[in-house]
Amino acid sequence: MVDYVTMPPKEARWLIREGKYTKQTSGMCAGYAQANLAVLPAEYAYDFLLFTQRNPKSCPVLEVSDKGSRRLNSIAPGADIAADIPKYRIYKNGVLEGEYTDVVRYWREDFVSFLIGCSFSFESELLSSDIPVRHIEEDRNVPMYITSIDCVPAGIFHGKMVVSMRPLPPDQVVKAVTVTASMPRVHGAPVHIGDPEVIGIKDINKPDFGDSVTIHPGEVPVFWACGVTPQSVVMSAKPSIAITHAPGHMLITDVKNTLLKF
Amino acid sequence: MVDYVTMPPKEARWLIREGKYTKQTSGMCAGYAQANLAVLPAEYAYDFLLFTQRNPKSCPVLEVSDKGSRRLNSIAPGADIAADIPKYRIYKNGVLEGEYTDVVRYWREDFVSFLIGCSFSFESELLSSDIPVRHIEEDRNVPMYITSIDCVPAGIFHGKMVVSMRPLPPDQVVKAVTVTASMPRVHGAPVHIGDPEVIGIKDINKPDFGDSVTIHPGEVPVFWACGVTPQSVVMSAKPSIAITHAPGHMLITDVKNTLLKF
Repeated sequence: MVDYVTMPPKEARWLIREGKYTKQTSGMCAGYAQANLAVLPAEYAYDFLLFTQRNPKSCPVLEVSDKGSRRLNSIAPGADIAADIPKYRIYKNGVLEGEYTDVVRYWREDFVSFLIGCSFSFESELLSSDIPVRHIEEDRNVPMYITSIDCVPAGIFHGKMVVSMRPLPPDQVVKAVTVTASMPRVHGAPVHIGDPEVIGIKDINKPDFGDSVTIHPGEVPVFWACGVTPQSVVMSAKPSIAITHAPGHMLITDVKNTLLKF
Repeated sequence: MVDYVTMPPKEARWLIREGKYTKQTSGMCAGYAQANLAVLPAEYAYDFLLFTQRNPKSCPVLEVSDKGSRRLNSIAPGADIAADIPKYRIYKNGVLEGEYTDVVRYWREDFVSFLIGCSFSFESELLSSDIPVRHIEEDRNVPMYITSIDCVPAGIFHGKMVVSMRPLPPDQVVKAVTVTASMPRVHGAPVHIGDPEVIGIKDINKPDFGDSVTIHPGEVPVFWACGVTPQSVVMSAKPSIAITHAPGHMLITDVKNTLLKF
């Protein structure tokens, strides 16, 4: 049986490129950062890059490719952006067209790729610090909510911030803030602690994305800016074409999570 | 006598706009961040924004204006980018054309303004932490050096990193790293500690910009990425036109230095 947990990222990316692995990447290549993907035609690239600059907590950019290039120089040298993710989605005018295990034949010379940090990285740091992560304990997807917090608009891109929520015992909250504050490249410190209504969440048990999780009596819901924000903002701007990863099917990078602190 | 040190930023910007203050801004409006300015036509804006994303230690962007707008929404609401800096420089094809106390009549609808963090902010934090800042003690400009460290290129923009240097007693070095590491929006932690030759500096007593300062026996030179990097990179790319602040004549923002930690 193949051990995906201890596999080096380069090897995992090869298996994915060869079509031998097409499932979610959660838990693969332990200790290495995984990244969200958004590919846009160059005509939208400036507005989107500006949007990420203005909304660094939701959109912490790890790397932007050169125009037309399928390569990354910094976070995953040797990776093929169009083939090393297990499942891609293509949207046209904001509508999902289909899912693909690679997008090589759809690649265009005017495409620019944005790789954005993912909360998988800080979750592994929370666990190392003996802070419980409920949706992992319950083997569910993290609960995510559309808030009333406006992102700072840039050009055609605007929308509400999406957050993820992890319930914590009160004596773990300060530790969780400190641990994640040291990792601004993967969403950083929480954006809100406590009462969900303050940020426009009406029912904590009905997330807009992902699964609901158990909140034990006395536990405090803690909310972090979520990488679904840029995807949701991109889709609502209805660009002529956009390529993203399918949820949970990320790019595995060569960057260790611990190095995202610097 | 007017007390510029305790003056609120809004008032200082008004005096500057009215032409009643045209000197350097060092020490004005204590506790508030000051910003470097680079204005470029929109055709260069994507490459330059990408350059800042790839080189966050030298080019920590505080705010990017909307195209054609002379306003800032975040760091200095109400400020006029074209009038609230005491002295501007206009470069054409990389050559200095002249210095002006405002650039209103030169403003164009395709201009984009980049406001970039300045080491004045972390120097005030160093002083609050009882860490000596030599060039302030000696009433000189900070010594700056062109290093052998390549910036990550983006489009037409490329070049070597420029660093500033502050000599410290050995028992203050760790404290200085910790204090500045907590302020990534104003250059963050040092890029090098110790032997200047490691980063291509041949003679520590002959800085490329600014003044040399006394290094006492046993003191360690500590090097930070410097806001001169983006200006030097912009100039060497020779854009048709670029407007910058004149050295030391910064935009005074409404953002408190202590808030640059978040």
